[in-house]
Amino acid sequence: LNTLTAYRNIVGDMGKLASALSLLGWDQQTHMPAKGVAIRSQVTGKLSKMLFEFLVSAELGAYLAELRNADGLSELERASVRRVGKDHDRNRAIPAELIEEQSIAQSQAQTAWVAARQASDFAAFQPHLEKMVGYARKFAEYYGYEEHPYDALLEDYEPGMTCRKLKAIIEPLRAELVPFLRRLMEKGTRPDTSLLDGTFDAETQRRLCRRALEVIRYDFEAGDLADVAHPFTTTIGPGDVRITNRYLEAQLLSSLFGALHEGGHALYNQGMPEELYALGLARGASNGIHESQSRMIENQVGRSLQFWTFFQPVLAEFFPQFKKAKANDLCAAANVVSPSLIRVEADEVTYNFHIMVRFEIEAGLLDGSIDVADLPRLWNDAMKRYLGVVPPNDAQGVLQDVHWSMGYFGYFPSYMLGNLYAAQMFRTLRKEIPTLDASIQAGNFEPLLGWLREKVHRHGGAYEPQELMRRITGHELDGSHFVSYVTEKYGAIYKL
Amino acid sequence: LNTLTAYRNIVGDMGKLASALSLLGWDQQTHMPAKGVAIRSQVTGKLSKMLFEFLVSAELGAYLAELRNADGLSELERASVRRVGKDHDRNRAIPAELIEEQSIAQSQAQTAWVAARQASDFAAFQPHLEKMVGYARKFAEYYGYEEHPYDALLEDYEPGMTCRKLKAIIEPLRAELVPFLRRLMEKGTRPDTSLLDGTFDAETQRRLCRRALEVIRYDFEAGDLADVAHPFTTTIGPGDVRITNRYLEAQLLSSLFGALHEGGHALYNQGMPEELYALGLARGASNGIHESQSRMIENQVGRSLQFWTFFQPVLAEFFPQFKKAKANDLCAAANVVSPSLIRVEADEVTYNFHIMVRFEIEAGLLDGSIDVADLPRLWNDAMKRYLGVVPPNDAQGVLQDVHWSMGYFGYFPSYMLGNLYAAQMFRTLRKEIPTLDASIQAGNFEPLLGWLREKVHRHGGAYEPQELMRRITGHELDGSHFVSYVTEKYGAIYKL
Repeated sequence: LNTLTAYRNIVGDMGKLASALSLLGWDQQTHMPAKGVAIRSQVTGKLSKMLFEFLVSAELGAYLAELRNADGLSELERASVRRVGKDHDRNRAIPAELIEEQSIAQSQAQTAWVAARQASDFAAFQPHLEKMVGYARKFAEYYGYEEHPYDALLEDYEPGMTCRKLKAIIEPLRAELVPFLRRLMEKGTRPDTSLLDGTFDAETQRRLCRRALEVIRYDFEAGDLADVAHPFTTTIGPGDVRITNRYLEAQLLSSLFGALHEGGHALYNQGMPEELYALGLARGASNGIHESQSRMIENQVGRSLQFWTFFQPVLAEFFPQFKKAKANDLCAAANVVSPSLIRVEADEVTYNFHIMVRFEIEAGLLDGSIDVADLPRLWNDAMKRYLGVVPPNDAQGVLQDVHWSMGYFGYFPSYMLGNLYAAQMFRTLRKEIPTLDASIQAGNFEPLLGWLREKVHRHGGAYEPQELMRRITGHELDGSHFVSYVTEKYGAIYKL
Repeated sequence: LNTLTAYRNIVGDMGKLASALSLLGWDQQTHMPAKGVAIRSQVTGKLSKMLFEFLVSAELGAYLAELRNADGLSELERASVRRVGKDHDRNRAIPAELIEEQSIAQSQAQTAWVAARQASDFAAFQPHLEKMVGYARKFAEYYGYEEHPYDALLEDYEPGMTCRKLKAIIEPLRAELVPFLRRLMEKGTRPDTSLLDGTFDAETQRRLCRRALEVIRYDFEAGDLADVAHPFTTTIGPGDVRITNRYLEAQLLSSLFGALHEGGHALYNQGMPEELYALGLARGASNGIHESQSRMIENQVGRSLQFWTFFQPVLAEFFPQFKKAKANDLCAAANVVSPSLIRVEADEVTYNFHIMVRFEIEAGLLDGSIDVADLPRLWNDAMKRYLGVVPPNDAQGVLQDVHWSMGYFGYFPSYMLGNLYAAQMFRTLRKEIPTLDASIQAGNFEPLLGWLREKVHRHGGAYEPQELMRRITGHELDGSHFVSYVTEKYGAIYKL
């Protein structure tokens, strides 16, 4: 099969450009000096364009056409042809001028968003957002869809997901969680967090995070931990998956959970065999599945009593004031629920509400039932309905996230799906490893990691998310597992 | 001039690939985890190949042919056409298969060299070195030359330099410096270095080096200081010129002079306008001129009494044991001369001898008057003649440098030329700025930097080295300035 070799070569070359782009992006956030930005954006622009040209090339198209009907491909090769083929088709569907135009509008919208958020001035951002919505709607038409234009965009982040399916997931979730949150706030007992008061040296936090990452079996020989303003994980290639974090001296747990979250993402990529990288399957099954890996390590593991039973003496090694702290009290303090304005600061119970607010608005923007001009009002109404809080200004409301200025419509649901996938997977995991609690409590994370590697990591993007969930848990995504998880856990912590 | 725009675009694109390659290289030495090496070498290989394909492309060749005879180009554009044109011609002169072959042999030779040096086993390296010499001779024939095959290779590192010119430079230098070194050793008084005994915390050294770099006006907003095993400077682009350094707890001054040396290289690139980068002229006038900038800051400035008069209290801020140290004593201790085996540890007086040894051998290997098999003996003989010391083994002798295993024949003279250029430039500088000593002594490095920017940095690779020297000092390279500098300085320090 000469075509297969040629196909693998071109996909391999795309992977090499993508690796260089990952490093350029990582460096831009970690080590690049301020004055390096001009050349960096030129270099990134050039390599991105080269990568795009590979992706939409007639050459790749010809290989894909032949390989789609070929025999003798391995299972992973077939998955690669499906996945790369979809990317190829979608990107060829959009006229090159439109992509160029949108990319210019995007960079203007981003600049405008930064200024608008700073001034809390939605009107200044509105024309830019209208443009970005316009492009999203055009793209949706070019991509094509059966029911709802939003479906065409969701496909980028969560293959197979649709507006209808999302509504069917959200409805029961909302119906259960809105009253649960009210009960929690009205009848529950808020954990005492005073033991976390104080200031905590940043360098000591950094060392603590390093230890926590070792504990969860993050491989430092295949990674790096650097400082940034907004933490993220970057995959430069097999054997090079880097975590970043930040350290706030007034908030000890912020950096720790940041490290566990990014560590979860990183374990996913560190657990993928090289063949997945070579075939363009190393982005994972979907954004939502990737998020499930970070949320599981952060929440199901890191915010559990088993974890704190093991981790309290570790914490005390670094911050001796916790020598006599009780695991119970630390765990409770790490699980405070409070309806708040900002998504990225939300707890497990309220996080999904922030997504529901955004999903309602995005779907309406895409099908034309919502006007951009009405967003501030609609945002505040929805916040009131879901969370019972209303932003005092748009900076803390509709202007808080960067996504729309980038044209990322359809991205937000991944965060919620990540939470739901994590709860469902973790339920299966506990059933299949009855000794899990005991091993976490003993600081042995090998059984956990072994299961994740076998069931999730090693498959990378070989399966679409619902197929992966069927293989792991026996059925497709079912939000009720998240409801049980959250109501049981927080019912107990809040002594309902 | 549409051709000019097309030419500038292609050279601009080459610059972007080169920038990405610089970052990949920098990261490999600074932050890349051990397991990241496999994908890194693939990525670097791919981008290098792309860059090479741009350079030898028929498209670029056509633009160059047209622009060589075109009117209306700026002076810098004409320089770019000369310089890029030469690179294009030279690289097209070599058959692609031969480049491929040589590159494979090179990577084998490097691996063999590492093992051979470790085992001090020249015989194990000999067949690889013979191959590398063979390729160098073939390349020289393809490049073409008038007098000596070595000239064809020198051109890569030092445009316009020839074997004959080098001999004419070396002969009087040798004639003066060999007896001077003997007198220094026999009749001079070696400075007392005991005040530098002790161990010096690495983190404090790192902060001291940062301060020293601020002092010489290195711009941290356009750079970065990272840790490595072997210090170097990398230019990622205008506004992004990064220094690396290492810290030995037993050798305080090693990191300081390392920082000043790399800082000198970095000031050169930080001082080049963007237009030079856009036109492929940002590598500098030559390797030797680049080295002159690092050696001047390290030696003419950093090893002067004026510098230490200012720097002693700064040093004492970081290492209080130097509170009562005298500038005189610190300066003398930083200027110890001792004939030694290892080039990279050599002082100002003996450094050039190490280069003369290598030059004699390289020229002989290229014209066939020397056989690789005789190298250990010839090396040791030459060391005896120039320095009066003989290596106890080949690891500390003929096997000490990596260059030959990389096929870099003709590179070594740049180091010596850097020393000579620096002495000659510095003489002019002091004449033109009579207050230089006073300003350095006061910690004001602005006059020095202003002069370097105006005379050297802002021109980048616009002029060939001898033309640049004429413009700066009124005449071409003249080694006698270095002789005066060294004999006056060390005669005084050694109380001859």
